[in-house]
Amino acid sequence: MPRAVREQQMLDAAVRIIGQRGYMAASMDEIAELAGVSKPLVYLYLNSKEDLFTACIRREAAALTEAVRTGVRRDLPADRQLWDGLRAFFAYTAEHPDGWSVLHLQARTHGEVFAAEVAAMREDIVAFVTQLIAAAARDAHRDPRMPEREVAGLAESLVGAAESLATWANATPGVTARQAAATLMNFAWAGLGNLMGGQVWTPPPGEA
Amino acid sequence: MPRAVREQQMLDAAVRIIGQRGYMAASMDEIAELAGVSKPLVYLYLNSKEDLFTACIRREAAALTEAVRTGVRRDLPADRQLWDGLRAFFAYTAEHPDGWSVLHLQARTHGEVFAAEVAAMREDIVAFVTQLIAAAARDAHRDPRMPEREVAGLAESLVGAAESLATWANATPGVTARQAAATLMNFAWAGLGNLMGGQVWTPPPGEA
Repeated sequence: MPRAVREQQMLDAAVRIIGQRGYMAASMDEIAELAGVSKPLVYLYLNSKEDLFTACIRREAAALTEAVRTGVRRDLPADRQLWDGLRAFFAYTAEHPDGWSVLHLQARTHGEVFAAEVAAMREDIVAFVTQLIAAAARDAHRDPRMPEREVAGLAESLVGAAESLATWANATPGVTARQAAATLMNFAWAGLGNLMGGQVWTPPPGEA
Repeated sequence: MPRAVREQQMLDAAVRIIGQRGYMAASMDEIAELAGVSKPLVYLYLNSKEDLFTACIRREAAALTEAVRTGVRRDLPADRQLWDGLRAFFAYTAEHPDGWSVLHLQARTHGEVFAAEVAAMREDIVAFVTQLIAAAARDAHRDPRMPEREVAGLAESLVGAAESLATWANATPGVTARQAAATLMNFAWAGLGNLMGGQVWTPPPGEA
């Protein structure tokens, strides 16, 4: 069997074990056994538990980002792009709960090196969502001068909401990917949609 | 000086050093020096670097939760409660950037024990926001049967958005607490407000 195929089997096993048991509790013995290879072969190919974990994070991050990007067609209306992006995101996290646990929980809990890997992926996704919101604001033509900083803040809010909701949906029996996407779309789009139309929420009168 | 006062000084110093340098890089020497005490006294009072860190997380978590709870008056209209809660949250995180870094970044990056401390605080805040949204839905009288699960998902979305936005605001020069609160209020309330009024976003026709 070619090395590349064997390596993917090792990563599959590592994502499953680390996602379910946690990085600290995951043993290289168990990962090798699940992958159907010897432990020395795992070390030969992936060097150390740390390097194996890093390879898992990178693979899962690339797959999630790719799923979201390919889920969105940039020629469609903004609300459709957002809906398609959310559906792609929640479908991916629901179908790959161990991968999502590796990215959102494990990678951020076991040291700055791993956290930095997943922070890089997050920046990519925030940049993608920022472009989407900026394009929607331009298309709406109502407030073409929506400040860049406001757009950036909205993108951060949306990504944070999606991360939080995906973790909750995976931990809550009976919540489907489509329901999670619809909850966030209802929360986010009606708000964003009003903003694009220039309808802002205003603080109570008398406030500084 | 009473032990309780000295301990608070040690925690003040530890939050500052850990928030700014990170938990791994923070040294007990530096913390003792900033607190104006000897290193043996820090160990005598707080036992170990791990226990000192845990005490920091608990103190900062309690202070943040308290700030949000006391910021909200439950007899006011729902949008006012949400606005007041968001202002209290972003004011606290902006005024205590080291405390927020300890809670949101450091506590979640350096092992499961510390991550569990901050997860407990997060559950408290989600429960508080869930009550607020459920009360708003009841007050609106438009859709009194908004499913509990939908309310829970909205609360998770809102808390995740606030966490993400606070971290971004603290890292972005010139973004004030009030601006961050207004960005999230615009994002969240117009969406939630429409939901309360029964105006849901609908998927494109033809979708399963």
